[in-house]
Amino acid sequence: MTIVVTGCAGFIGSSLVDRLLAFGETVIGVDNFSTGQRRFLESALKNVAFRLFEVDLLDLSSLTASFAGGDLVFHLAANADVRFGTQRPGKDLEQNTIATYHVLEAMRANGIRRIVFSSTGSVYGVTDAIPTPEDAPFPVQTSLYGASKLAGEGLISAYCEGFGFQSWIFRFVSILGERYTHGHVFDFYKQLKADRSQLRVLGDGKQRKSYLYIQDCLDAMQVALEKAAEKINIFNLGVEGYCEVNDSIGWICRALQAEPRVEYTGGDRGWIGDNPFIFLDTKRIRSLGWTPKFRGVLPPVDWWPTAVRWPFASTTS
Amino acid sequence: MTIVVTGCAGFIGSSLVDRLLAFGETVIGVDNFSTGQRRFLESALKNVAFRLFEVDLLDLSSLTASFAGGDLVFHLAANADVRFGTQRPGKDLEQNTIATYHVLEAMRANGIRRIVFSSTGSVYGVTDAIPTPEDAPFPVQTSLYGASKLAGEGLISAYCEGFGFQSWIFRFVSILGERYTHGHVFDFYKQLKADRSQLRVLGDGKQRKSYLYIQDCLDAMQVALEKAAEKINIFNLGVEGYCEVNDSIGWICRALQAEPRVEYTGGDRGWIGDNPFIFLDTKRIRSLGWTPKFRGVLPPVDWWPTAVRWPFASTTS
Repeated sequence: MTIVVTGCAGFIGSSLVDRLLAFGETVIGVDNFSTGQRRFLESALKNVAFRLFEVDLLDLSSLTASFAGGDLVFHLAANADVRFGTQRPGKDLEQNTIATYHVLEAMRANGIRRIVFSSTGSVYGVTDAIPTPEDAPFPVQTSLYGASKLAGEGLISAYCEGFGFQSWIFRFVSILGERYTHGHVFDFYKQLKADRSQLRVLGDGKQRKSYLYIQDCLDAMQVALEKAAEKINIFNLGVEGYCEVNDSIGWICRALQAEPRVEYTGGDRGWIGDNPFIFLDTKRIRSLGWTPKFRGVLPPVDWWPTAVRWPFASTTS
Repeated sequence: MTIVVTGCAGFIGSSLVDRLLAFGETVIGVDNFSTGQRRFLESALKNVAFRLFEVDLLDLSSLTASFAGGDLVFHLAANADVRFGTQRPGKDLEQNTIATYHVLEAMRANGIRRIVFSSTGSVYGVTDAIPTPEDAPFPVQTSLYGASKLAGEGLISAYCEGFGFQSWIFRFVSILGERYTHGHVFDFYKQLKADRSQLRVLGDGKQRKSYLYIQDCLDAMQVALEKAAEKINIFNLGVEGYCEVNDSIGWICRALQAEPRVEYTGGDRGWIGDNPFIFLDTKRIRSLGWTPKFRGVLPPVDWWPTAVRWPFASTTS
C-alpha cells in the first residue's frame, strides 16, 4: 500500500513515517519544512520506499501532483502550536482549515478516499463533561486553533457524506516523546538549560493537562484503522489520568536536578484561548483493544530527559 | 447606532435593513449582488440613513473600508443554497468560512466588537436528539454547507475569547416569506407556474422540515440582542412543529389550484448531504419572551401565494 503522510517532517509525522517504512509500506511524504525538520527524516530518506515532496499544502496543484499513486492519506500537517492564534489569526484558518480542504481536493483528484486526520481535544472548548467523551454536548470554541481543527473535521465529514470518503478522526491530548519540539514541557527544559535558577510559567501552573506517548498514539491510530470501519470514525486519544502543570515542573526539575525560582504569569490559563483542563474519555478507542504502554499520568520520569533532550540538544548544537 | 448588514440585498438581509431603517437606525449595507437583488433595496436606497457598498467579502481591504463607523455587524452574507455543495465544494468554504473570517478582521480593524451571525440547523447533522437543543451531542457534519457555517461559528467564538468580541449566533430552520428566492417551496411554485400538470420532487417527499416566517425571525434576533448578554449567545430559531415536504406540496397545490402528477426522484434525502429531518428545540429563545406570530407548522396557507408569488412574478417579468 502507498500511504501519503502530510507533515511528514513533524514530530508525529516523522515518527509515523519511520513506523510505516518499518512495516514495509511505501510512503509519500509531504512537508513544507516551515516547522518540520529534515533531520527527523534522516532514516526515512535512506529508504527507497520513501519519496519526499517539499510542497506547501496551500499550493493545490503541486499537492495534487504529489499525491499520485496514494491509497490512504494521513493528514498530520498543521499549525500545531495552539498558543499564538490571536497574534496572527489567519494562520490557523490557512494551515488547518484551508490546507485540509486542499488535501481533500488533492485526494479527490487522485481517486484516494481514505483519510486519517489529527484533530485535537481543544475542539471541546471549556466543557463540564470531564472526562470528555466524543459525543459531549455541542461545544463552543475557545481558540482559533480548536476552531480551525473543528472546521477541518467538518470538511472531512462532509466529504465522507458527499464523495464517499472514509475517515478516521483523532482528537488528541498533548502528545509527548522523541522529536517533540514545542509545548510547555519542551519550553521548561529549554528555559532550565539556559538558566537553572529560574523558570517562567504561563498561567498559575494549575492548568490540568493530559499527555500521551507518541508510540502509544501511533498504536491507537493503527488499531482504529484496522478495526473501525464506519464511514466516519472519531476517537479521543489520551491516557486515563492528568496532571497539573506544577506536577510536571516537579518531575522535570528532579530529572534535571534543578531547583529554580518559579515565576507565574498568573491567571488560570496559559494563554488566550488556553483550555485549563483537557481530560478525554478514551473508552471508545480502548473498546477496540488498545491500551497505552505508558499508562500513568505522564510517561515515566526516567523516560523524560532522553526524550526531551533529544530535540533540545540538536537545536543548541 | 450604525449597523452593518452583510448580504444586505438578500432575502433576510434586505428585510432586516428595511426594519432597521424603520426603527431610525443608520445602516451600512454590504453586498456583492451575486445572489442579492437590487430591487429588494428599492425602499432602502431612498433613505438617507442607508449607505450601500457593492463589495465582495473576499476583498478584505474594501470590506474593511466599508465597515468604517459601524457599531454592530449583522453578518448575513452567505452561500445560502445548501444543495450544491458537492458540485463546487470550495464555494461554501469561501463564501461562508473565509468570508466570515474577513468580516471578523474588518471588524477588528474598525474596533467593532459585536456580531450577529446567521448559522443553520444543518450544523446538527443527522441527530437522534429531536427536537434538537443547542447543546445536543457533538454533531458530525453531513453537508459542506453545515460544515462551513459551523466553521464560521467557531471563528466567531474564538474571536469572542481572543479579542473581546460579543456574538449572537442563530441556528435557523428554513426561513420563508416575502423575497424568499430559493428552496423547495419556491422551486415547486416555479415548476407549477411553468407546467401545472407535473411536479418533480427531490427525494421521497417524506423529508420533514420546519419553517419560520421572516418577520418572526427578525423579531427573535431583536429580542436576543436586547436580552441576551453573554459573551457568546447561541439560539435555535424555529417553530414548534414541522411538516413533510408532501404536506407542503398539498398546500401549494391547493393555493395554486393545481393537480400535478408528482414524480419523486427517490431516496430519503433531497440531495447529497440533505438532512431528512430538521426540527429544533427553541426553548432557549422562547424563554426570553419571544413567540412566533405564525405558530403553526407553516405560515398560514392564505399567506403563501402572496409571499411566494412576489419574487416569482418578478423573475418572470
